[in-house]
Amino acid sequence: MSISGPYDDQNIFAKIIRGEMPAVKIYEDADVLSIMDVFPQAPGHVLVIPKEPVRNMLDMSAEALVTTMAQVQRHAKAMQTALAPDGIMLVQFSGEAAGQTVFHVHFHLIPRINGDTVGPHGGGMADMTELEAHAAKVRAALR
Amino acid sequence: MSISGPYDDQNIFAKIIRGEMPAVKIYEDADVLSIMDVFPQAPGHVLVIPKEPVRNMLDMSAEALVTTMAQVQRHAKAMQTALAPDGIMLVQFSGEAAGQTVFHVHFHLIPRINGDTVGPHGGGMADMTELEAHAAKVRAALR
Repeated sequence: MSISGPYDDQNIFAKIIRGEMPAVKIYEDADVLSIMDVFPQAPGHVLVIPKEPVRNMLDMSAEALVTTMAQVQRHAKAMQTALAPDGIMLVQFSGEAAGQTVFHVHFHLIPRINGDTVGPHGGGMADMTELEAHAAKVRAALR
Repeated sequence: MSISGPYDDQNIFAKIIRGEMPAVKIYEDADVLSIMDVFPQAPGHVLVIPKEPVRNMLDMSAEALVTTMAQVQRHAKAMQTALAPDGIMLVQFSGEAAGQTVFHVHFHLIPRINGDTVGPHGGGMADMTELEAHAAKVRAALR
């Protein structure tokens, strides 16, 4: 599959944005939603999801890019305060070949600890209690 | 080493920005410099480097974040036109634990091909002729 293509509004993030699917939400405004990744590549893995209905970063409007990146940086700072990782990795996949699995644009913020390793798919589905605990900490640090 | 810390202007990207070290440049303006990564994780690996002297994304000013991300997106589109990869990966490492090796903020754009794999350090130093060829193509697509 190529990088570009039609946007399908039945993807899971579109459903979460519309409130048709549950998610562990951290923050939401008119432009952006942030949630905990349920298949974390490391504990505390956060997704910042622009509400603009496009497949990937290449298709984003200049306006959405500005509002989204401001929130990405704000969430990274909150993650630093809340979870005190040794490093933070920002990743955005455009296209299946790059590792994209949900075709609604999203940015990954992954806390890293000295000496850890992160796999492409993480270690399976996260424990919901742990996700809620991480979300609560990041949410508090955003305030 | 923690994510934050003092900025040391003797890092290699600061030297490249000041013209004290060579690099295969793609684009330059008052705010941003883009170059080919000499240790590519995949052929065509591009670095977009804000000129703002800070260690990582967390430390960037709102203004630098806006101008830089506009160039990141512009370069991703040019990469798509110039190199026709199947996917494009955007990565930014904040902190040594996240994979950062040069402590001047920079954004990686890595072309991906179906079925390829990218390692943390790539396959060694690139051939300069190949880097120049990739740079020329991306440069042409930016115009």
